[in-house]
Amino acid sequence: MTTVHARLEELGLTLPEVAAPVAAYVPAVQSGKQIITSGQLPFVNGQLAALCKVGTDVTPEEAQAAAGVCVLNALAAVASLVDLDDVVKIVRLGVFVASSPEFTGQPAVANGASELVGQIFGEAGAHARAAVGVAVLPLNACVEVELVAEVR
Amino acid sequence: MTTVHARLEELGLTLPEVAAPVAAYVPAVQSGKQIITSGQLPFVNGQLAALCKVGTDVTPEEAQAAAGVCVLNALAAVASLVDLDDVVKIVRLGVFVASSPEFTGQPAVANGASELVGQIFGEAGAHARAAVGVAVLPLNACVEVELVAEVR
Amino acid sequence: MTTVHARLEELGLTLPEVAAPVAAYVPAVQSGKQIITSGQLPFVNGQLAALCKVGTDVTPEEAQAAAGVCVLNALAAVASLVDLDDVVKIVRLGVFVASSPEFTGQPAVANGASELVGQIFGEAGAHARAAVGVAVLPLNACVEVELVAEVR
Repeated sequence: MTTVHARLEELGLTLPEVAAPVAAYVPAVQSGKQIITSGQLPFVNGQLAALCKVGTDVTPEEAQAAAGVCVLNALAAVASLVDLDDVVKIVRLGVFVASSPEFTGQPAVANGASELVGQIFGEAGAHARAAVGVAVLPLNACVEVELVAEVR
Repeated sequence: MTTVHARLEELGLTLPEVAAPVAAYVPAVQSGKQIITSGQLPFVNGQLAALCKVGTDVTPEEAQAAAGVCVLNALAAVASLVDLDDVVKIVRLGVFVASSPEFTGQPAVANGASELVGQIFGEAGAHARAAVGVAVLPLNACVEVELVAEVR
Repeated sequence: MTTVHARLEELGLTLPEVAAPVAAYVPAVQSGKQIITSGQLPFVNGQLAALCKVGTDVTPEEAQAAAGVCVLNALAAVASLVDLDDVVKIVRLGVFVASSPEFTGQPAVANGASELVGQIFGEAGAHARAAVGVAVLPLNACVEVELVAEVR
């Protein structure tokens, strides 16, 4: 049985540090058996990986990679509350893509998040997903991902 | 006692086929007693019913009808996991309306989803709802609906 | 032990009347131990507090105050189902900010919601949050907030 930790190592991935809580909100909250993360931006070592907007300044491929970075940040937020091996399933991803008005490829961008979840969690990673294109995101990020996980 | 199936028949409605899972996400996930669907687009037989954006290319009435189509697709997703008669209540609808910047009639569009849920589920269909206007939706759809149901 | 009611009084805040249900949706729904509110607009006595869009027509400070108004409306929705002292924690805030395309200060606007929740609920108010910038909101509102609370 491969653990989530072993899977991350196989994939050459390391969980980032959890971003310090800003204002009166926190990276993740547990309610019953669900952990709900805050919306995660594609920060790598405190720097945003790709800036707005997909379709003009950022390619779909760059945004796809950035969506994967958001997922790692979301998992770090989950891991701040429980061991990732206690995650029974990933329930939902909400993916917001800062889009130029003509860009309609949000599903491909969101696949950068969905496929990474699948690689890390296997069948337990089969999640519901809503992907939408928004006008603009905090700090001019190109993508924001929130995650709901069910834990033991 | 009218069942949901009988209500659908009375309304002349048929549940569509569930869209095949794309990438590593699925039409709906159960977590505890909740079923969370993926964001549903107004597909009718594999074709999008109305294309972006409400306020310019699509009338509010067309978008309202499309929101109802999204609900049927969401219920098909729920029905892929449980019998619809095991739905205790519809908990939440999230309605994203691809809007021209001046269009502020998202509630009327979302009523196309809410009222159909009410017709099908009666009192058990009284749900919480968030309706917002977004810049653009996947595949240039005019509306996207996600649904949370509570089951027995 | 200060109750939520006492805290509201100390802060000089009064819960507004719950907006009457429109169409087939309701202000809030309970599912298990969670209460999910509908998206709340910054109504004060039936009038919208600030109209679209942040970055042009509305200052970030005005939008921040409006986000607090949305929270009061959301708590009124929760209080229509349970006593606020039965709230164990605030689980999640979803904050949608109607933004001009260049405005990237959604977190500061959302802090108007988060900080008020913190003032009212203390540690039990430490919530997960997703803040995004959208093209346009219902009735041209500048901000919309939805809230999930866990109750006893």
